[in-house]
Amino acid sequence: MRAMTSFPTAPSKDALEQGEVLTPRFDANGLIAAVATHADTGEVLMLAWMNAEALEKTLSTGEAWYFSRSRGELWRKGATSGQVQKIVEARIDCDQDAVWIKVRPQGDGGACHTGARSCFYRAIEDGGLVDRR
Amino acid sequence: MRAMTSFPTAPSKDALEQGEVLTPRFDANGLIAAVATHADTGEVLMLAWMNAEALEKTLSTGEAWYFSRSRGELWRKGATSGQVQKIVEARIDCDQDAVWIKVRPQGDGGACHTGARSCFYRAIEDGGLVDRR
Repeated sequence: MRAMTSFPTAPSKDALEQGEVLTPRFDANGLIAAVATHADTGEVLMLAWMNAEALEKTLSTGEAWYFSRSRGELWRKGATSGQVQKIVEARIDCDQDAVWIKVRPQGDGGACHTGARSCFYRAIEDGGLVDRR
Repeated sequence: MRAMTSFPTAPSKDALEQGEVLTPRFDANGLIAAVATHADTGEVLMLAWMNAEALEKTLSTGEAWYFSRSRGELWRKGATSGQVQKIVEARIDCDQDAVWIKVRPQGDGGACHTGARSCFYRAIEDGGLVDRR
């Protein structure tokens, strides 16, 4: 059996928002949203999910781990694609229910399974989508 | 009674990922994650949620609307704080379950209820949090 990863709970709103203790708030499914941006260009590459184990592994290994909601499993980004994401900085938001990681994508430099550099390759314009690759 | 806002559903994976039709995929709670970055600096300002009505209003008004999970209500960003977010560009990701908006914050130029410019004012370092305001 794998040991459960656990993080403490903030004792107060002030501790949650202003404290120096990492007390991530996972949702009812045990997940926290994580946005990855390119450390050099600032481009938003992807938005994915981490469970406690994925967050712990991301912080301890310096590479992005996520939790796949569709496959229901822990997922080391780039394990098959080579698009490993080296963590340059990790941040957490005011109420500690979202994570922002600044990464340098390895391999071909992309982040999206479609082959696009970023998953956000389409702009919404006049109700339709326009390719901005 | 307010009319329901509705978006079409993609007929195929190819249409979802490569098509020109906006077919956002809301989760079991009717929500889609939305990340807002500053259009000029690229800084990630906040990560919040939109229901179909919030997304529709964001696209039709050119200002960010969200859905507050804690208050259970539609929320025009900046209605009370003045931190209205003018939309410069809106994007959607490969599988259309996340939105990225590039915004110009109005009012005092901030986005966070704590007074910080960005909600992500703390970096995670050595398991603790460090203020990066």
